[in-house]
Amino acid sequence: MILGHIAAILHSDPQLMSLPSTPVVGCLGGGQLGRMMGYAAHRLGVRLVCLDPQGEESPAGQVTSAVAGSFTDAAAIERLAADVDVLTVEIEHVNAATLRALQTSHPKLQIHPSPDTIALIQDKFAQKQFCRDVDVPLGPFTVIDSVADAVAAGARFGYPFMLKSRHWSYDGKGNAVVANEAGIAAAIATLAPTFAPGKLYAEKWVPFAKELAVMVVRQGSDVRAYPVVETTQQDNICHTVLAPAALPTAALHDAATAMATKVVAALSGNGIFGVEMFLTTDNTLLLNEIAPRPHNSGHYTIEACETDQFENHIRAVAGIPLGSCALKVGASWMLNVLGTEDPKVTTDLLAHAATVPGASVHWYGKAAIRPGRKVGHITVVAPTLAALLDRAETLCPAAKPAVAKPPVVGIIMGSDSDLPTMAAAAKVLDQFDVPYELSIVSAHRTPERMYRYAQAARGRGIQVLIAGAGGAAHLPGMVAALTPLPVIGVPIQTKALSGMDSLLSIVQMPRGIPVATVAIGNAMNAGLLAVRMVGGEANLTKMQAFLEAQEAEVNGKIDKMATDGWSAYLASMNL
Amino acid sequence: MILGHIAAILHSDPQLMSLPSTPVVGCLGGGQLGRMMGYAAHRLGVRLVCLDPQGEESPAGQVTSAVAGSFTDAAAIERLAADVDVLTVEIEHVNAATLRALQTSHPKLQIHPSPDTIALIQDKFAQKQFCRDVDVPLGPFTVIDSVADAVAAGARFGYPFMLKSRHWSYDGKGNAVVANEAGIAAAIATLAPTFAPGKLYAEKWVPFAKELAVMVVRQGSDVRAYPVVETTQQDNICHTVLAPAALPTAALHDAATAMATKVVAALSGNGIFGVEMFLTTDNTLLLNEIAPRPHNSGHYTIEACETDQFENHIRAVAGIPLGSCALKVGASWMLNVLGTEDPKVTTDLLAHAATVPGASVHWYGKAAIRPGRKVGHITVVAPTLAALLDRAETLCPAAKPAVAKPPVVGIIMGSDSDLPTMAAAAKVLDQFDVPYELSIVSAHRTPERMYRYAQAARGRGIQVLIAGAGGAAHLPGMVAALTPLPVIGVPIQTKALSGMDSLLSIVQMPRGIPVATVAIGNAMNAGLLAVRMVGGEANLTKMQAFLEAQEAEVNGKIDKMATDGWSAYLASMNL
Repeated sequence: MILGHIAAILHSDPQLMSLPSTPVVGCLGGGQLGRMMGYAAHRLGVRLVCLDPQGEESPAGQVTSAVAGSFTDAAAIERLAADVDVLTVEIEHVNAATLRALQTSHPKLQIHPSPDTIALIQDKFAQKQFCRDVDVPLGPFTVIDSVADAVAAGARFGYPFMLKSRHWSYDGKGNAVVANEAGIAAAIATLAPTFAPGKLYAEKWVPFAKELAVMVVRQGSDVRAYPVVETTQQDNICHTVLAPAALPTAALHDAATAMATKVVAALSGNGIFGVEMFLTTDNTLLLNEIAPRPHNSGHYTIEACETDQFENHIRAVAGIPLGSCALKVGASWMLNVLGTEDPKVTTDLLAHAATVPGASVHWYGKAAIRPGRKVGHITVVAPTLAALLDRAETLCPAAKPAVAKPPVVGIIMGSDSDLPTMAAAAKVLDQFDVPYELSIVSAHRTPERMYRYAQAARGRGIQVLIAGAGGAAHLPGMVAALTPLPVIGVPIQTKALSGMDSLLSIVQMPRGIPVATVAIGNAMNAGLLAVRMVGGEANLTKMQAFLEAQEAEVNGKIDKMATDGWSAYLASMNL
Repeated sequence: MILGHIAAILHSDPQLMSLPSTPVVGCLGGGQLGRMMGYAAHRLGVRLVCLDPQGEESPAGQVTSAVAGSFTDAAAIERLAADVDVLTVEIEHVNAATLRALQTSHPKLQIHPSPDTIALIQDKFAQKQFCRDVDVPLGPFTVIDSVADAVAAGARFGYPFMLKSRHWSYDGKGNAVVANEAGIAAAIATLAPTFAPGKLYAEKWVPFAKELAVMVVRQGSDVRAYPVVETTQQDNICHTVLAPAALPTAALHDAATAMATKVVAALSGNGIFGVEMFLTTDNTLLLNEIAPRPHNSGHYTIEACETDQFENHIRAVAGIPLGSCALKVGASWMLNVLGTEDPKVTTDLLAHAATVPGASVHWYGKAAIRPGRKVGHITVVAPTLAALLDRAETLCPAAKPAVAKPPVVGIIMGSDSDLPTMAAAAKVLDQFDVPYELSIVSAHRTPERMYRYAQAARGRGIQVLIAGAGGAAHLPGMVAALTPLPVIGVPIQTKALSGMDSLLSIVQMPRGIPVATVAIGNAMNAGLLAVRMVGGEANLTKMQAFLEAQEAEVNGKIDKMATDGWSAYLASMNL
């Protein structure tokens, strides 16, 4: 398809059959993001035409309409604009000046996100200033317009610090680490051979515990966030994405979502945005940067969310109501596939992925497998994080998420003297491979701790609590009063009353606050009950097998008693 | 793209950039099934070229390569075959004779499914004979080669019976109902104006409770089945699909899966097959017919399964290992979108679908919205069947699945005299809108029933059991011994011992078989505990609100006591 023919094609060519009343969307860029937008546009009946130097041969051009031309060439953009209702981007390095001019010359043309937003994002220093102005926390940064500025930045931030190009940087390009004052000149020369004001800025080195990202989609006042995800980079290129992120508290999920939503709401224009942030070692969130388009950290949404990022972007810019951003699976993990020196390494990984249950391959259709370039990705979904970790291990042990299986059962007891009893519950959970945590929480001696523990349990992903206590045993009932989770009570056997005091203190709860009470001292049954409550096919199947093994054991005894006679049997018992 | 240019395109045009080592797949037909295969082929890096009269303007041609030509035209098929490694179909009404000839003339060409399978499926009578020969149950049928045959069929099957064309029938076309002997001639004239042997057959009228379908994918000895789904038809066209089907027993799911797997394993060639069957009113499964290709009843797999039917078809024919057929969501429902006289009715439905969480629209890109023709479909996913029914109701009240929310809690009691106590559990479940069932199951008086009930509960989707019993209360513990599900025990208050006998009979279970015991007579707490165990965001959020309401109620009393003074408060209590 050649530029200049678009109008004829759009208005006469049934190849572009779209749903009546949907706008024609033009997209600057036709790489893998445009390709995945293409699938969504087809499903929605929206005509999508991408502008890309490779035209029909671009990744997007293979699945939807595309015209050959550069997304930085004013004439090419203007010709596309003349024949579409909406312009959007799949890369931020487009000709923003042309988009600004089109706002005036083509008042009916919608441009999403707005040219102002695109221009702002293009200048990383201006982007950071904007975030600071809207009160979003981020690490210290400063403009570098001279060597003296860089020396001052080193004095202020300490070494090493990051020197960065304000414009045209991506995937780690345009970044230099300044190790000491002597390294300033070389770093400047690398990034800006013809150094001049407006080209560089510096960021303080931020030691972080995790890199997080949140995709946010905006359509006017409707701003929706996808789950917070955890990303890893390799050679400054996105390597893996884990959804949802394994964060220490639910409050951090909420805070990261609020931050991402706030900054996107402050920008102008519709569409999807990728908001990257750091979680520091002291659990502070700092904004890193924003992408005004579908983002690598949101690819997992295709398989894992009720509406994927590409479809929500098309909906946002085409005036179709936004879809749900909720996860529809328990957990998801994405692995980028880069070109390798020996292409067989790449193709072997993709072939291996086909053997992993829940794994989906996305090939980008690039013209060649070039070393270090993104040629595809693999998304794995699973009903639980635990199952996901197993699948990720099968797919790529070297890259699998470095997270422990999060506890789903909490075992608590009033005193360490209860541990000999309560250990039986932990042993059962070990046996069934159900992740748990175990600690002392005393209703009478640590009431504040009990309160905090019970209230936070649900938010931390705990599904069942097992509480052991003896005597005037208040822990199980008090915890049940403070959480909506099911609580199992284990009456500890006491000296004076053999545990009848513990049993009645735990079981005889008033109406409204139930405790699932087991027999005196029978923490093993509490563990088994917790496995039944956590449930799921795998656990219930293991439980069925456990019951059958118990039955087989008794059958063995029946046989032996029949064979040996009861008298010999009795004699053989170590009574 | 014009026929004859395919070779040049495939071997020189980077538009068709595919993953090295994958075969080029040619597909006869380029409708919506080819379109959805196209998305999967792109993702997998497989070159897919469709042959369709509309060529690039066909639904498939808009998203992948297509050549113009008829899938019944020998010359067109031969030209496509010359340039691909694998031939497959998205419609069974192709030229099977040409495919058979190609097997000989092009020994390197793979054809999936095999031409024999396609020819067999094309003749519905032969298809049924084949199924009978491999011992798959199906309703009575017989060949109709003369009017006398039809009269004999009426005598044997009774009236009404179905007269059907053996060839070229789909979506109810080619079927006629014969109401009585006088109607035979008219029915024959409708279906076969030039009647001759080999054209018609008859089927006994099968009154069915449900229509079911199972998608099965086969790659050599690897045969995998998707979940059993329930379909509804409107004017003989697939209308809705519910996955998984709401069947009375888990055994029926297994039987339907086994039947579908058996018949597909008996056919030759790789690929996906749609197996339609009837569930009669006496719970017998009868095979209806087989589609040797992706099928309308499998569209839901795109959003709902770990690998969708189109991708698994491409994998099956392209030699890529098959993917998992497991559901990745709790439940899914598909609604076909047909063209309407006033196209606005169609487009309004699609626009409305965009507002329903978990709903995905699939527009097929057909050249026009023609009344009664499939122009798209909508798939809804949800974490649970209950949530799915709510979403289906929002999307289309007239078409939503006619299934009750299946019970997830079973309340059982040893005697009707326990009902006054146990009713409190049912009331709580009503209040929290958790579906349940309630019945009498006595350990001592109906031991067989107790055994069957406990063993079937998990397979029927029950997640938690509540068992009430008094005196020598064995029901909760016995049930717990027979199921891996969590069992809550309610000790019924007794006259002689005030329920202490019940409590100790229930709570003091041996190691290995836990019962979650609540206070004597406190079935309300059993209900609340069941809600906590069933869990999920909605239930736990309601439970949190319930706890807060309880707290507010006590706070009100605290305030009143402070305001009125304890003495007045005491006087106002109806003691």
